Amino acid sequence: MKFNVIVDQLSQFIKSHSLTTNPDFNPEITQLAAIDEAASGHLSYIEGAKFASMVSKTDASALILPVDETLQTEATQRGIAWIATVEPRLVFAHAIRLFYQPFRPCPGIHPTAVIHPDAVMGENVSIGAHVVIGAGVKLGHDVCLHPNVVIYPGVTVGDRTILHANCTIHERSQIGADCVIHSGAVIGSEGFGFVPTAAGWFKMEQSGITVLEDGVEVGCNSTIDRPAVGETRVKRHTKIDNLTHIAHSCEVGENCAFAAQVGLAGGVKVGNRVILAGQVGIANQAKIGDGAIASAQTGIPNDVPAGEIVSGSPCVPNKLYLKVSAIYKRLPEMYQTFKQLQKQLEKE
Amino acid sequence: MKFNVIVDQLSQFIKSHSLTTNPDFNPEITQLAAIDEAASGHLSYIEGAKFASMVSKTDASALILPVDETLQTEATQRGIAWIATVEPRLVFAHAIRLFYQPFRPCPGIHPTAVIHPDAVMGENVSIGAHVVIGAGVKLGHDVCLHPNVVIYPGVTVGDRTILHANCTIHERSQIGADCVIHSGAVIGSEGFGFVPTAAGWFKMEQSGITVLEDGVEVGCNSTIDRPAVGETRVKRHTKIDNLTHIAHSCEVGENCAFAAQVGLAGGVKVGNRVILAGQVGIANQAKIGDGAIASAQTGIPNDVPAGEIVSGSPCVPNKLYLKVSAIYKRLPEMYQTFKQLQKQLEKE
Amino acid sequence: MKFNVIVDQLSQFIKSHSLTTNPDFNPEITQLAAIDEAASGHLSYIEGAKFASMVSKTDASALILPVDETLQTEATQRGIAWIATVEPRLVFAHAIRLFYQPFRPCPGIHPTAVIHPDAVMGENVSIGAHVVIGAGVKLGHDVCLHPNVVIYPGVTVGDRTILHANCTIHERSQIGADCVIHSGAVIGSEGFGFVPTAAGWFKMEQSGITVLEDGVEVGCNSTIDRPAVGETRVKRHTKIDNLTHIAHSCEVGENCAFAAQVGLAGGVKVGNRVILAGQVGIANQAKIGDGAIASAQTGIPNDVPAGEIVSGSPCVPNKLYLKVSAIYKRLPEMYQTFKQLQKQLEKE
Repeated sequence: MKFNVIVDQLSQFIKSHSLTTNPDFNPEITQLAAIDEAASGHLSYIEGAKFASMVSKTDASALILPVDETLQTEATQRGIAWIATVEPRLVFAHAIRLFYQPFRPCPGIHPTAVIHPDAVMGENVSIGAHVVIGAGVKLGHDVCLHPNVVIYPGVTVGDRTILHANCTIHERSQIGADCVIHSGAVIGSEGFGFVPTAAGWFKMEQSGITVLEDGVEVGCNSTIDRPAVGETRVKRHTKIDNLTHIAHSCEVGENCAFAAQVGLAGGVKVGNRVILAGQVGIANQAKIGDGAIASAQTGIPNDVPAGEIVSGSPCVPNKLYLKVSAIYKRLPEMYQTFKQLQKQLEKE
Repeated sequence: MKFNVIVDQLSQFIKSHSLTTNPDFNPEITQLAAIDEAASGHLSYIEGAKFASMVSKTDASALILPVDETLQTEATQRGIAWIATVEPRLVFAHAIRLFYQPFRPCPGIHPTAVIHPDAVMGENVSIGAHVVIGAGVKLGHDVCLHPNVVIYPGVTVGDRTILHANCTIHERSQIGADCVIHSGAVIGSEGFGFVPTAAGWFKMEQSGITVLEDGVEVGCNSTIDRPAVGETRVKRHTKIDNLTHIAHSCEVGENCAFAAQVGLAGGVKVGNRVILAGQVGIANQAKIGDGAIASAQTGIPNDVPAGEIVSGSPCVPNKLYLKVSAIYKRLPEMYQTFKQLQKQLEKE
Repeated sequence: MKFNVIVDQLSQFIKSHSLTTNPDFNPEITQLAAIDEAASGHLSYIEGAKFASMVSKTDASALILPVDETLQTEATQRGIAWIATVEPRLVFAHAIRLFYQPFRPCPGIHPTAVIHPDAVMGENVSIGAHVVIGAGVKLGHDVCLHPNVVIYPGVTVGDRTILHANCTIHERSQIGADCVIHSGAVIGSEGFGFVPTAAGWFKMEQSGITVLEDGVEVGCNSTIDRPAVGETRVKRHTKIDNLTHIAHSCEVGENCAFAAQVGLAGGVKVGNRVILAGQVGIANQAKIGDGAIASAQTGIPNDVPAGEIVSGSPCVPNKLYLKVSAIYKRLPEMYQTFKQLQKQLEKE
C-alpha cells in the first residue's frame, strides 16, 4: 500500500486532530513493525523519548512520529516518510487495521453444533464446530462463537460479541454487545461459597448471576464467578487480561484495565478507569476509588481512595513505596548501626 | 413462599439448635438478597457487628439474625419478620436451597458423546454433548458430565460427582464421590519434572496418579498434577478455588480451603483444616500443620506449625507481620534518623 | 523386571559415565517409588545428603545411589541391590521409562474431528474426537492431538508434537517439533493491547504471531499471547509449567524453566537457561540475562544481569534478600530503639 494512501485513510479515522506529513516521500509499505525490528518497506512508530533515538538508526521506510520538529527533520534527512501526531500509538493502532483483520469465520451454524431448540439467535451468527448451547439461550445479531464453546442454559449474549474456542459461559450469565471472551475463560461459574460447620464445609449454592456490560473483554483462562445472591458485574468497556480471577459479588467499574493474573476476592468494588498491573490482589470487600492505579504484585487489604497510586504488599502510596523500597536494601547496614547504638544505649 | 413455611423447612435442616422467630409477621418472600441490596419481599441475613446497623435501614421483609435481643426488637419494631440463630450465614445458605437449585441436565447420554466401549457407568449418569471418555473409565451412579469434558483412560469417578464443561481428567486419576470439578480445571496432568543435563532438560515421565477423595471441589481452570511416582492426593471435603495450582506429589489434608490463585510447589504436605487465602505460594517440600492459616499473597518457604497464622513473603507469624507492616511505612523516617546517628557515631 | 535387566538397560541409556553396581543381589523389581514410600520389590533413588539417612531405613529392594562408598556399603549390608551414579535423579528418570509410557492414542483420525479440507497432515498423525482444525493448518509426522483441541487457521505444528485435550492454538501460530502443549493451554491468543483515548480503550489488533521452537513444553492452562506486530517467541527446549502467562512480544531463550503461575508482561526478553520459580512476575520490557535465577514470588521491575540470583519484590540480589528478610522480622525491635534514640536526639 502506498504511503499516501495510508495517510489518507488514517486521516479519516483520526477526527480529533489533523495529521502532519512530509509530502516528499511516498514509499510502498508492505508491513508494519516495531521500531527495533523495522526494515525497508515497513511502517513503524515512535512513542515517547525512550525510542526517539531510533529515528537516526531505523531502516523503516515510514514512521508515525510525535509532534517534534527535530525528529521530523531527522526523518526527512534520512529519507524516511513520516506522519506526525499527538497520539502516535493510536495512529499506529489504526494503521494495523489497514493491513490486518483477525480471523473471523463466515456466518453460519456448523452441523456439529448442539443447540437447544429453545435457543433464540439473531441474524448472521457464526456458530463453530462442537459448540453447545443450552435451553433458553439468546444470542444477538452477528454473534461469533468459535469451536467448542459451551453455553449453559439461560445465558444472553449481545450483538457482535465474540466467544473464542473452549470458553464456557455458565447459567443465566448476561453478556453485553461488542464483548470479546477469549479462549478458556469461564464466565458465571459458581462463586467459592462455603460455610464452616462442625461437620465440614457446607456449600452455599450460588443463585446469583454474572453480568458483563457492553464492550467488556475477558482474557484467556480468566474466571468471573457468580454470587450466592445478586450479581457479579463488570461495567462497560472494561478490559481484563489473561488468568485473572474476579470472585462472586464483585463490581468492576467502566473502562478499567486489569493486567494478567490479577485476583479480586469476594465483594470487591472497583470504580471507573482503575488500572491494576499484573498479579495484583485485592482482599474481600475492599473498595477501590475511580482512577486508582496499583502497580504489579500489589496486595490491597483495604479501601484505596480515588486517584491514588498504590504499590507493595500490604500496599502504601506509590511515592512512599519507592522510598521504602530504596531503603529496604539498606536494612542490613541500618541493622548493624542499630546494634551498635543499642549497645551504647545499654551502657548509658 | 410464605415466611412461616421457610421457617418450618429451615428448622428441619438445622438440627444443632432451635431457631427463634417472631410469630407476628408472615410476609410472602419472593427472593433472597444480600443485606445492602434487599428490598420488600426479600429475605436477607445479618452476620456479625459489621452489618448490624443495617437492621435499622434495610427494606428487607425478613431477616435471619444472630441471637441478639436488641436486633430482634429493632426488627420487630420495623415490621420485619425474623429468625434468630447462632449461625445466620449457615441458615441463609439453607434458605437459598429453598429458592434455587443449580442447573442440572437430565440423566441420559448425549448421542454426540464419544465413549470407549470398555468404559463402565453406574445408573442415572448424565453425559453431555461432545464428552469424550477413554478406555477403562469407571463412572459411579448419578455422575454428571457437562459438555466437552474429556476423560483420559483408566480414570474412576465416584457417585454423584459433577464435572463442569471443558474440564479435563488425565489418565488413571481417581476422583471420589460427591466431588465438583469446575470448568477448565485439569486433574492428573503431567507434573513438571525435568532433570538438568548437559544436553538440556531430560523429561522425567510422570507415572504416578492424582487422587481426589470424596467431597473435594476444584475451581475453574485450577490444575492438580500427577507425580513421577506415587500420588498427588487431596483429602476429603477440601475445597479449592479457581486458578490454583497443586504440583506433583503434594498431599493436601481434609477440610482445607484454598482461595484463588494459590500455588503449591512439588511435594508440599498440607494438614487438615488449613486455610490459604488468595495468591499464597508454598515452596517445595514444605509441611503445613493442621489448622494453619496463611493470609493473601503469603510466601511460605519452610514448614509452618499447626495452628499458626502466617503472613508476608517470606512469611512470619501474623502478629509480627502486622507490627512489621506498620513500621514498614516508617522506614524513610527511620532511615533519616539513622543517617544522622551514623554521622554522630562517626564523630565520636 | 529383574534388577540386572534394569541395570543393563540403564547402562545403554547413560553414555556419559559407567554405572557401578553390586552383583550380589538381583531382586525382582515390580515398581518404582519415592524413597519415603518405597516397599519390598521397589526401586528408589537417593539424591543428596538430605535423604542419605533413608538408606538405613528404607524397605526398598533396590536403590540408585550417588557415588558414595559409605552409602553403598550400608545398602549392601542391608541386602539392598544398588546402582551408583553421579546423576541418581537422571538414572531414576530413565528407569521410570522402563516401567511406564504415558497414554498415547493409536494413529488415526477420529470420525468426529472437523478438519478443513485445506489442512495438510504428515504420516501417522493421531487426531482425537471433536478436534477442530482450521484452514491452511499444517501438521507434521506423528503429531498427536488429544480430544477437543481447537486449531485456528494457518497454524503449523512440527513432527511428534503432542497437544493435550482442550488446548487451543490461535491463528498463524508456529509450533516446532517435539513440543508438548498441556490441557487448557492457549497459544497465540490476542495480546492485551489497548490504547487509552478520551472515548475509552481503543483495541490494537494483534497481527503478529506466537512461535514455539522445537522441544518447548507449555503447562496446563498457561497462555502465550501474540503481539500487535512481530513475534512472541519461546526458544528451543524451554519448559513452562501450569498457569503461566507470557505476554505479547516476549522473547524467551533456550533451555529455560518457568515454574507455575509465573507472569511475563509485554516485551520481556529472557536469555538462555533462565530459571523462574513459582509466581514470579517480570515487568514490561525488562531484560533477564543468561542463566539468571529468580526465587518464588520475586517481582522483577528492571533488567537482571546474566547469572544473577534475585529475590524479593522489588527484587534484589538473593544474598542481600536473605539478610534483609532476616532483619525484616526485627523491625519492631529496631523501631522501638529508634524511637528512644529519636527522643534522645531531640533532647540534645
